Amino acid sequence: MNPHIVRLRLDISYDGTDFSGWAAQPDRRTVAGCLTQALAILFRFDVPLVVAGRTDAGVHAVGQVAHIDVPTAGLVALAPRVGSGESLVQDDSLAGGRIGLLRRLAGLLPSDIRVRSVGHVPDGFDARFSALSRNYRYRIGTAAWGVEPLLRRDVLAHRRQLDVEAMSRAAAALIGLHDFAAFCKPREGATTIRELQGLTVRKDQDLVVLEVQADAFCHSMVRSLVGSLIAVGEHRVSIDGPAALLASGARAGVHIAPAHGLTLVAVDYPADADLAERAAATRSLRELP
Amino acid sequence: MNPHIVRLRLDISYDGTDFSGWAAQPDRRTVAGCLTQALAILFRFDVPLVVAGRTDAGVHAVGQVAHIDVPTAGLVALAPRVGSGESLVQDDSLAGGRIGLLRRLAGLLPSDIRVRSVGHVPDGFDARFSALSRNYRYRIGTAAWGVEPLLRRDVLAHRRQLDVEAMSRAAAALIGLHDFAAFCKPREGATTIRELQGLTVRKDQDLVVLEVQADAFCHSMVRSLVGSLIAVGEHRVSIDGPAALLASGARAGVHIAPAHGLTLVAVDYPADADLAERAAATRSLRELP
Repeated sequence: MNPHIVRLRLDISYDGTDFSGWAAQPDRRTVAGCLTQALAILFRFDVPLVVAGRTDAGVHAVGQVAHIDVPTAGLVALAPRVGSGESLVQDDSLAGGRIGLLRRLAGLLPSDIRVRSVGHVPDGFDARFSALSRNYRYRIGTAAWGVEPLLRRDVLAHRRQLDVEAMSRAAAALIGLHDFAAFCKPREGATTIRELQGLTVRKDQDLVVLEVQADAFCHSMVRSLVGSLIAVGEHRVSIDGPAALLASGARAGVHIAPAHGLTLVAVDYPADADLAERAAATRSLRELP
Repeated sequence: MNPHIVRLRLDISYDGTDFSGWAAQPDRRTVAGCLTQALAILFRFDVPLVVAGRTDAGVHAVGQVAHIDVPTAGLVALAPRVGSGESLVQDDSLAGGRIGLLRRLAGLLPSDIRVRSVGHVPDGFDARFSALSRNYRYRIGTAAWGVEPLLRRDVLAHRRQLDVEAMSRAAAALIGLHDFAAFCKPREGATTIRELQGLTVRKDQDLVVLEVQADAFCHSMVRSLVGSLIAVGEHRVSIDGPAALLASGARAGVHIAPAHGLTLVAVDYPADADLAERAAATRSLRELP
């Protein structure tokens, strides 16, 4: 543990509409790119960001988590001067630095990204590898008139009824530890074995809301699951269709639901004492038992 | 009552961000302009719209109400053909026409305006003059980190705490039938006497929510009330400041809160039997008792 470096957890929200996803790319507006730019102004170097969920272009977040390692002195220097605002905890200059960082980021970042909190975490905390689960929500407007205009950025307009009961039954059959190859864009050398911990479908007035939880997701997995369940809800595919597809392992005819209905809502972590153990376990390649 | 004409009530939502307000203006994108354009395609004439609340540029609605008079034959012609969708009530061609109009509008209108329902109302119904009250909501994000990105279009980012208790007390002193000249942009020949039926301020997590109800509002009245209460919440103005301003009748130093925090949430109407009486009473100029 280096006393000159402090690890910070950032809780981040964004409206994904105008971003080419999380990951920094040259000449593209990305969430990581904007955050790195703001952090570079405050710390005078390109602070590496480690993130829980690398969301695709157009996907939103209200509970994204990242961690950064920054020089303790640089953080303390951001503490608001005494008398410049509400009273600070005088004997905790790190806390003052975190408050200062939060406020400075609020001023520097565009309004479609917000850092909601800056927390001091143990060195064992790793935003990506310590995570126990990622929680996503997908919302679909099924009313014939469409979607409430102020929700249209994060709700898919479908304008036809969906059979929520059929979708729920199809969803339940996918829960558990499986090879989700049929629902993943393949990436060389990467496993597609995941534990789907939850997948529920419910009606909320004019919306159909899907909530998905897994230890981790491979690329485009949430949207492929949602696309398959929409097909069930429209009676284009039978209730046992998605489970049969999962068993086949073949990525054939999977419809990927549009990005803008999807939001990363939360990432779950273990208690501090179990962080390092969790990270080590995650780093080893997932295998079917 | 002309049997060839039918009066329809439209319940309308819009994201005001990209509109120059409700009222049609040449060379400006307005809510009424877009609706008139869509209705002209369906009915082949410029259908006059009568609206409950002429909202300003940037103001949103989730419960706007307007009425239109259209030819019965033209409406019936919009009914979906039998077999083309879910079953229709065969013996009610007007109901079929209303369903058809709703769907056609959903296809024709941009996604930042939605007509949520099309209702058949008695001739005595007048969206403007029959209304008993208009209900507006104003939301302010007070967290130091700002406003949740997906809410930033309809929540004002303030980033400083507000004294909600002081705001509530100042608000309560404004309730009742008064001449709101101090809070209104003057319009020649128009009264500024209104009955403020409700004005509440509450905290909802990181938001301060103001709910305002009146029989009607004069121009910029809601935003002037909100601006005055924000000044109280910041302790720039005393709790009895807004009531003193009201009593003075002088429009001096009133801060008008930004448009985008404001949403028209509902318009209340009397029972059908009382519609005509209400409209007649409203048309006569309001006077202090």
